[in-house]
Amino acid sequence: MTNNASEHTQSLQCKDRHFLHPWEDVTATGTAARTVIAKGDGIYITDSDGKRMIDGPGGMWCVNVGYGREEIVAAVAAQMRDLSYFSPWSVTAAPAAILAERLAALAPGDLNNVFFTTGGSTAVDSALRFAFFYNNCLGRPEKKHVIARVGAYHGSTYLSASCSGKMLEKANMDMIEDRVHLIPNPNPSRRPAGMSVEDFCDAKVADLENKILELGPDKVAAFIAEPVLASGGVIIPPKGYFERCHALCRKYDVLFIADEVVTAFGRLGSYFASKDVFGVEPDMLTTAKGLTSGYLPLGALFISDRLLAEIKAAGNSAKPFFSGFTYSGHPVAAAAGLANLDIFESDGLLDHARSVAPHFRKRLQELADLPVVCDVRVAGLMGGVECSLDTDQPNEERDMNFLLKVDRICQQNGLLLRPIYATAVMSPPLTISKAQIDEMVDILKHGLQAAAADL
Amino acid sequence: MTNNASEHTQSLQCKDRHFLHPWEDVTATGTAARTVIAKGDGIYITDSDGKRMIDGPGGMWCVNVGYGREEIVAAVAAQMRDLSYFSPWSVTAAPAAILAERLAALAPGDLNNVFFTTGGSTAVDSALRFAFFYNNCLGRPEKKHVIARVGAYHGSTYLSASCSGKMLEKANMDMIEDRVHLIPNPNPSRRPAGMSVEDFCDAKVADLENKILELGPDKVAAFIAEPVLASGGVIIPPKGYFERCHALCRKYDVLFIADEVVTAFGRLGSYFASKDVFGVEPDMLTTAKGLTSGYLPLGALFISDRLLAEIKAAGNSAKPFFSGFTYSGHPVAAAAGLANLDIFESDGLLDHARSVAPHFRKRLQELADLPVVCDVRVAGLMGGVECSLDTDQPNEERDMNFLLKVDRICQQNGLLLRPIYATAVMSPPLTISKAQIDEMVDILKHGLQAAAADL
Repeated sequence: MTNNASEHTQSLQCKDRHFLHPWEDVTATGTAARTVIAKGDGIYITDSDGKRMIDGPGGMWCVNVGYGREEIVAAVAAQMRDLSYFSPWSVTAAPAAILAERLAALAPGDLNNVFFTTGGSTAVDSALRFAFFYNNCLGRPEKKHVIARVGAYHGSTYLSASCSGKMLEKANMDMIEDRVHLIPNPNPSRRPAGMSVEDFCDAKVADLENKILELGPDKVAAFIAEPVLASGGVIIPPKGYFERCHALCRKYDVLFIADEVVTAFGRLGSYFASKDVFGVEPDMLTTAKGLTSGYLPLGALFISDRLLAEIKAAGNSAKPFFSGFTYSGHPVAAAAGLANLDIFESDGLLDHARSVAPHFRKRLQELADLPVVCDVRVAGLMGGVECSLDTDQPNEERDMNFLLKVDRICQQNGLLLRPIYATAVMSPPLTISKAQIDEMVDILKHGLQAAAADL
Repeated sequence: MTNNASEHTQSLQCKDRHFLHPWEDVTATGTAARTVIAKGDGIYITDSDGKRMIDGPGGMWCVNVGYGREEIVAAVAAQMRDLSYFSPWSVTAAPAAILAERLAALAPGDLNNVFFTTGGSTAVDSALRFAFFYNNCLGRPEKKHVIARVGAYHGSTYLSASCSGKMLEKANMDMIEDRVHLIPNPNPSRRPAGMSVEDFCDAKVADLENKILELGPDKVAAFIAEPVLASGGVIIPPKGYFERCHALCRKYDVLFIADEVVTAFGRLGSYFASKDVFGVEPDMLTTAKGLTSGYLPLGALFISDRLLAEIKAAGNSAKPFFSGFTYSGHPVAAAAGLANLDIFESDGLLDHARSVAPHFRKRLQELADLPVVCDVRVAGLMGGVECSLDTDQPNEERDMNFLLKVDRICQQNGLLLRPIYATAVMSPPLTISKAQIDEMVDILKHGLQAAAADL
């Protein structure tokens, strides 16, 4: 319990001991006194003792339209009154059907088939299961290996976690190793001394090709990649990398799965970044988070028409994809998704996000002048400010204490951070104004300076 | 498109072509003309052309408090206005903390730690990942095999699907085979001719013990089991089976995971069936569905204090369980869960469910007199009416056409069914009255008779 918390807050912190949080140290359950968030409005959240803060990470890269949007509340309440559930196995309902059609129209290329899931983890898990299914249907049961990258994050099911490459977070956690393979982190900030970014890009593209050739193209089912590695610390691969990886996948008949759980719905200025930002039409695409701006749990896997056509052409027997969830296409979550898309349209949110992104970049990049900051990475409205005090590489000593201290100072001054090892990541609601960007970065800058002065 | 559907319905069915449904035949996407459900009230649903029907499967074993409960709508809208999201990694919020505490108080034994998930699949996936983690922390990295059963259903992630034993639904779907093992179906209706139920029970318990001994107790991490196998067709193992399996797990130091995604929240008359109905205190328990009555996606994994204490005792370094979801403990879903529990209390719903269950049993069992019905299985407010026209055994010919015909007739007369192969499964909202049970079973009986007469 924190000493300065109100009785109400302390009571909630006590109850919270029964809530085993993600990534919680299970040898220390019941000892945390977490900040209790009570209210959200716009880009701000307020804790249970009345402290109002900018939500730097935007929830968890998700509250894209900001908190307190009455349009979503009204749509959810109306849908819940009409129909709170239907079984997607046997019947359908308007919100899911309409959302599927709208999403298919927005998604790149021929990604016209929407398999709804409960979030990003199940979208990725379903994508990989579909890749296996696809190759079984095509009579290639040996083509099952999956390639992913160090530094990536793809979720918390056994299969999606196995494709994640945050190596420190595999301690004591079993991973699928017989068919999942990780290639090196494409972070150009960590390229060898003296190597140009262009040469580094060539090397990272070659990593993929070499892995495909090592496993054998006839054994590799899929390559899965975030366009920008989000939870890995806003890692932005070199220009051309994503497109060249896609071309390699086409060359070797390997499915290219774009994991856009974070980068879709305006985070990089477009509904989907794959094509608009990176020039790629993936074979499958996974998303979640910004799909409802986090108001309700919802994920989606998009599957291309081409894959379905190939399965159909491979034989004339029925091929059910035996997968799905009780909550697939949940009508209330779908209603939230529709209202969320309506806000994007009515607010011109993509235009707004694109218009403030240069200011966000400029202000964050100023932080690179601080002695404690070693790298600033920005893409659209995603930012990562890496401190030079430690490193997130495996097998090296880590010290999160510095950024946790920065976080405490920032919270006191009105900004919630989300440190990932040595990196403060920022992904505020897309509704943020230039003045609010200034407010946010000023608090972060002061926090970094104050914590550094205290070293 | 159905010929008699309204233009409005046909328009929705067209949009629905972009929604790839669970279990959909991907060689036939875009050809289904699904019933569009537009409204729910109490135990009834109404389609987009105004046809009102009893919802026989209760959505998908989930709409336990019935449709249209304003208490849940109001709680969800209020929570969404206050706070639509928080990141469970770094902070907490009242609804999740309070729900965790209330659930821990209701759960059997020392299942006091609630790991929220996005549904049943992710609850099961997380349970098994926790079992692996637990044995790694205890220095037993070889103790990783999982035993499950033919006929079981545990979800649609790669790991949870691998533990499912609906064998026909594995066609073209890859499964984890190196550490997941299925033992035979404990359905006493399918016991060998001449064998008593007691002897069959002995044999099914022996199946578990033999599998543990075959793999080696020091290699087996967990046994996962639904108390009543739901999607397998309401399979009710013999009396004593669940308890004896639990005792065997204790004997061999194997974790016993009760999958109560379906059987919790009143379906068998108690909040949780494991202890109250079957006398068992599991090491872990998974649930979803009735947790919010399907109003919003939410799942939960309960972990016993004992397991956490053992991990803590095994060493003094931090042991983070590196798992969790963007939507873990989602405040709006948690608010729905709290309102749902309030309804159970204010309506005395467990008492009601127990009071009507004998009538439900009696009326369904009358159907056993029909020549087309070979078996009727009832537990609480779960019922399975198996037709003798075909069988759900693997490698045998199936014919769902008879029950699909029954379903069509029943829909015309005001009852939506959910045939699973040869079995019509019933799990109506727990609010159902005796008169409504009569209405439901009368329609089903007529449907069975009419379809049989047409053979």
